Amino acid sequence: MSLIDLSKQVALGVDIGGTNTKFGIVNHRGEVLDKGNLKTDAYDKVEDFIDALYEHVSPLMEKHGAEKNFDGIGVGAPNANYYKGTIELAPNLPWKGVIPFAELMTAKFNLPCTVTNDANAAALGEMLFGAARGMKDFIMITLGTGVGSGIIANGSLIYGHDGFAGELGHTIVKPGGRKHWSTGSEGSLEAYASATGITITAKKMRAEFPESMLNQYPEDEINSKTVYECAIKEDPIAIEVFRYTGQKLGEALANFVMFSSPEAILLFGGVIKAGDFILKPAKLHMERNLLPIFRNKVKLVFSELDEADAAILGASALVWEK
Amino acid sequence: MSLIDLSKQVALGVDIGGTNTKFGIVNHRGEVLDKGNLKTDAYDKVEDFIDALYEHVSPLMEKHGAEKNFDGIGVGAPNANYYKGTIELAPNLPWKGVIPFAELMTAKFNLPCTVTNDANAAALGEMLFGAARGMKDFIMITLGTGVGSGIIANGSLIYGHDGFAGELGHTIVKPGGRKHWSTGSEGSLEAYASATGITITAKKMRAEFPESMLNQYPEDEINSKTVYECAIKEDPIAIEVFRYTGQKLGEALANFVMFSSPEAILLFGGVIKAGDFILKPAKLHMERNLLPIFRNKVKLVFSELDEADAAILGASALVWEK
Repeated sequence: MSLIDLSKQVALGVDIGGTNTKFGIVNHRGEVLDKGNLKTDAYDKVEDFIDALYEHVSPLMEKHGAEKNFDGIGVGAPNANYYKGTIELAPNLPWKGVIPFAELMTAKFNLPCTVTNDANAAALGEMLFGAARGMKDFIMITLGTGVGSGIIANGSLIYGHDGFAGELGHTIVKPGGRKHWSTGSEGSLEAYASATGITITAKKMRAEFPESMLNQYPEDEINSKTVYECAIKEDPIAIEVFRYTGQKLGEALANFVMFSSPEAILLFGGVIKAGDFILKPAKLHMERNLLPIFRNKVKLVFSELDEADAAILGASALVWEK
Repeated sequence: MSLIDLSKQVALGVDIGGTNTKFGIVNHRGEVLDKGNLKTDAYDKVEDFIDALYEHVSPLMEKHGAEKNFDGIGVGAPNANYYKGTIELAPNLPWKGVIPFAELMTAKFNLPCTVTNDANAAALGEMLFGAARGMKDFIMITLGTGVGSGIIANGSLIYGHDGFAGELGHTIVKPGGRKHWSTGSEGSLEAYASATGITITAKKMRAEFPESMLNQYPEDEINSKTVYECAIKEDPIAIEVFRYTGQKLGEALANFVMFSSPEAILLFGGVIKAGDFILKPAKLHMERNLLPIFRNKVKLVFSELDEADAAILGASALVWEK
């Protein structure tokens, strides 16, 4: 018998994205007891963001706090450093420089706080509760506003010597290719396979092909959702936008496979709503760029978890992992 | 006090390359007591190769066997599978298909045999006895006839789910680029940064520039050695051959860094004799393709170990690691 009643232990999981932040109160069984969200990009100063987060979260903490013990806070965020507790030079966040995020959170919430890359958190969530249960080697790719990744090898997250490993969205898939709107690099995976990248591809292609259905929308409504609407109506240009995106993704995935030879690659995030329009060309171009020894072995699958929950669950898992 | 006198325990380390095979008898302190070599490509059948290896090795084993105990055999070879003991579909070896190499070796030598990727073995050698002592995260890149790699993360070799992880030479660095002479893939790192790749680049460039010193050699003498001879005599075309090679290498290295964020990348193998002619452009193009958070952090260094010894030491380390 344990002296601690685990059913009363909870953690706060926070997932910070470029646009939205999601949070949830999670128990040891991976159940999200309560959750909410706020706009990340509405706060130019990180202190204001943390104050706002506290205002959103504290009523929920009070509600559960009477009967639960809060063990800590786990945070998934772009460019977050597990070892140092910092968020550093994140291109998709409004806060510049090196932010001592865990320290600021602990000062405000009076709880220990652990941070990691948002995609690392999602990978932990998938390993504990999702499609990667039981796997010791897999790669998680998050396709949202940006492209993130979490790499599990030998059953552990790869953090690298400095805590920043797994920035696969910034690997170069087409040298000298499309300039990234924020990092300035040329031809990164994120420049093509993120929602932002898809929008750029769609705008370029509709300008080239006046007959495309994509031209029925005003400029500011062109995004991965409207491309999808046109693709299901069989607009060949919209289909080509996704095919091209899938090709670039697949070419990048082949390189990742030859690095860590994962059992599976899990795709996650808003962009996967495009389904087979992206998955099929991604699979094709991954396979054709692989050495024969790697072919037809790697499962290329969509996440099984609800998008918001996976990141929250993964972030909360950090609390108990430490 | 130990009941086993470790100083009497030795292992046979074997490093199989596309052209040459090196072997050595190694003790627990990482001393190579005796060594030798034979031609890999002189044996079309793997059984004949193993017979020849046995004939080369057995006099040495007899010499040391009177006073030493052989614990086993460790083998580094291209496309070798640690989990299965096989060499599978190795593009640079004369033996095709899936070879049960460890089993064949054990049948011949009557000793347990462990195999791994030749570059993995070299990485183990560097971690135990070389420039990577004390490092928990580094990448070893071997630049020889082919380009191999061994990846250490969290202090362990990354094998992947199937034992084939770390084939970074076959990652695509220039999509649609130079066709690989053996795999057929287009634009792989090996197609540019191996000794074979450098020879191709040199032949193309000397044809374009009739004034190059490289044109003073007959076609079959163009290789990384003659390019080096011309480069130290300040032939701008020979220098450009290495610069271009270094650029492609550096671009690939940037992607590897954003994968596993290593403390160092160790370069190893015949090609590194070109020194700064390759290292400087490699460093430049690695840095310029990295996200700011990774810049000026990764040590790009040459192996400290004698080339033959590192692979033999690493292969022998497999015996005691198991």
